[in-house]
Amino acid sequence: MLGNFSYQNATKLYFGEDSLRFLKDELAKYGGKVQLIYGGGSVKRNGVYDAVTGILRECGRDFVEDGGVMPNPTADKLRDGVRIARENHVGLLLAVGGGSCCDYAKAVSVSVHCDDDPWEKYFERYEEPDCEILPVGCVLTMAGTGSEMNAGSVITNHEKKRKAGHVFGPEVMPKFSILNPRFTMSLPKRQMVAGIYDIFNHICEQYFSGEDDCTSDYIAEGLMKSVIHSSLIAIGNPEDYEARSNIMWTATWALNTLIECGKSTDWMVHMLGHSVGAYTGATHGMTLAAVSLPYYRHIMPFGLKRFARFATEVWQVDPAGRTDEEIAAEGLKEMESWMKKLGVALSISELGATEDMIEGIADGTVMLDGGYKKLTRDEVVQILRESLLPSA
Amino acid sequence: MLGNFSYQNATKLYFGEDSLRFLKDELAKYGGKVQLIYGGGSVKRNGVYDAVTGILRECGRDFVEDGGVMPNPTADKLRDGVRIARENHVGLLLAVGGGSCCDYAKAVSVSVHCDDDPWEKYFERYEEPDCEILPVGCVLTMAGTGSEMNAGSVITNHEKKRKAGHVFGPEVMPKFSILNPRFTMSLPKRQMVAGIYDIFNHICEQYFSGEDDCTSDYIAEGLMKSVIHSSLIAIGNPEDYEARSNIMWTATWALNTLIECGKSTDWMVHMLGHSVGAYTGATHGMTLAAVSLPYYRHIMPFGLKRFARFATEVWQVDPAGRTDEEIAAEGLKEMESWMKKLGVALSISELGATEDMIEGIADGTVMLDGGYKKLTRDEVVQILRESLLPSA
Repeated sequence: MLGNFSYQNATKLYFGEDSLRFLKDELAKYGGKVQLIYGGGSVKRNGVYDAVTGILRECGRDFVEDGGVMPNPTADKLRDGVRIARENHVGLLLAVGGGSCCDYAKAVSVSVHCDDDPWEKYFERYEEPDCEILPVGCVLTMAGTGSEMNAGSVITNHEKKRKAGHVFGPEVMPKFSILNPRFTMSLPKRQMVAGIYDIFNHICEQYFSGEDDCTSDYIAEGLMKSVIHSSLIAIGNPEDYEARSNIMWTATWALNTLIECGKSTDWMVHMLGHSVGAYTGATHGMTLAAVSLPYYRHIMPFGLKRFARFATEVWQVDPAGRTDEEIAAEGLKEMESWMKKLGVALSISELGATEDMIEGIADGTVMLDGGYKKLTRDEVVQILRESLLPSA
Repeated sequence: MLGNFSYQNATKLYFGEDSLRFLKDELAKYGGKVQLIYGGGSVKRNGVYDAVTGILRECGRDFVEDGGVMPNPTADKLRDGVRIARENHVGLLLAVGGGSCCDYAKAVSVSVHCDDDPWEKYFERYEEPDCEILPVGCVLTMAGTGSEMNAGSVITNHEKKRKAGHVFGPEVMPKFSILNPRFTMSLPKRQMVAGIYDIFNHICEQYFSGEDDCTSDYIAEGLMKSVIHSSLIAIGNPEDYEARSNIMWTATWALNTLIECGKSTDWMVHMLGHSVGAYTGATHGMTLAAVSLPYYRHIMPFGLKRFARFATEVWQVDPAGRTDEEIAAEGLKEMESWMKKLGVALSISELGATEDMIEGIADGTVMLDGGYKKLTRDEVVQILRESLLPSA
């Protein structure tokens, strides 16, 4: 813990099977019309939409519909959401869905009272909000992104083939989030495992950085062990409440700024994955899974001690009589074997990426400095080419 | 994670060697006079008092002194602090010290605008505040209690020989806390290790409860491993910044409600320790240490699986060829050996308790239901008698 930092996260979380009933208390805190944000309609099929609108009606709250938020919310959709909020004098943005709906709600929240184009201001120029920010609340139906308790927002611009994330300050975090593990149970298995891998990778991005002894890494190991353990139960029985609840809770704490405290962070898997996503439209978690192993095998020699610790602490690799290289490699092998059990994508070709896209995806990959090795463009191309190959 | 719960913790933390400079930003948020709360004068010797009052003067802020907060703040001192705040129309309670100062500041904060006697209202009748609550800020100089990011307050009534804790709602949590690990370095070693054991026991009290698979327990294991690792460095070299910073950070997260999420909790070691403290006036962390092993050995058979997990996950006990009983017992032996290295009290006789106090201490022990075994009064007496004996 050698770094200096500040930490504040005021989002109020209601967790459990009965948590939706607290929506009433939260609605009472915010005036104006409610903008009801949701995705492609799964919330209408699984009953969550009816439950939420029932509470809105019971509380006598006017609301305006803002459905159709896509898995990777677009700049055009964002502009449309801002227009809806303005035209209806909205006082609360209520996202009912997964990370995309939460991300989108936050992007709308900082744009309603701002004159600039939101894509350009926040996702090209990375400016900070200098206007009133609308309050955001979430009713979460998918575990993965952690968006329910952080200030991040990822928006995709198809014209520019760019998927960009902005991490705002604590004032952009949702005011409240309602987490009912049962709401995640109607998700198709492919979505569930993409979410699980997203959680795991969020932890990795913060874990694979730094050389000092830092409490954050011990917490990260605990979260990884919990999500691995519960994921293996959930793929066998997606209705296992205990496993789904642990997955939901690890998702929140994997990316609400706690485990980055005092640390540098990496985030290169996300940069590669975002660029793959901009080209293929593939599910976020799957793009991360597809590039992870080639990336980690590439940087392993530069962070060997940490990769060896990952192997022994997270995967219970027995270090006896082995070199750090062997221990570290064995850890990544264990991780690969777990990923196969989950059934996540292990190559970008499975996601529709082709050889001729590689240069473009490399061009779209933002190069960050914070992991064990700052990549050159040639290395990015090499990792992407390796990610094209089906896994052994 | 089978329990339903809500979580909110809005305390803003500034962590690191340069963190005191943020006091200026925080002062600007709160009007009125500042009540400067501190203990027996160590902050005057180590320069923290001068640094804080320098900033207050620089910001042109009037302040009133409220020093002399004792290690176990008393009901009489609390009444006095309330009087100071009222007479001076105080707008911010600024605690500069350890957990006692923070606990005391929170108790004052809920009592200034309340007509009832604070001891009777909050520590006998356990009522909730129904009045305006003054904002509290902390500049922490000792790591241990977690008081800097929670809503707990422990007050001692010598007349009644009672030491009682009240955990208030999130609105009583400090608005901000400044955590500079260097400020903890001038503590005498005995205070440092008492704080370390307090941290560890806070985690144990939340860990040794419940049978379900719960993410909170994985986080707890990470925190325990981090504080054990850093404590062994810090006892060799108290000036090791990395170790002291990890100890400070684990203290905060050991008791800010995170690791109790979704769980039942125990807290019987604290109940025993508080009663020992009320009789002996001994340092809080030392009273916990002195009763822990007899207590845990007593309840081990009732929570055998958890004690075995504690042994393998936290103490790396090799389970091969051993029964759960043997594994669990080995874990407590490892814990004892660590406590000896720390040099914490291993019997209540070291703290001044005598045979003739046992019945009184037992009478003062609040019996809680939440751990692996609800104790009878006879069992409390038995554990206290075992705690009188010097360790083997």
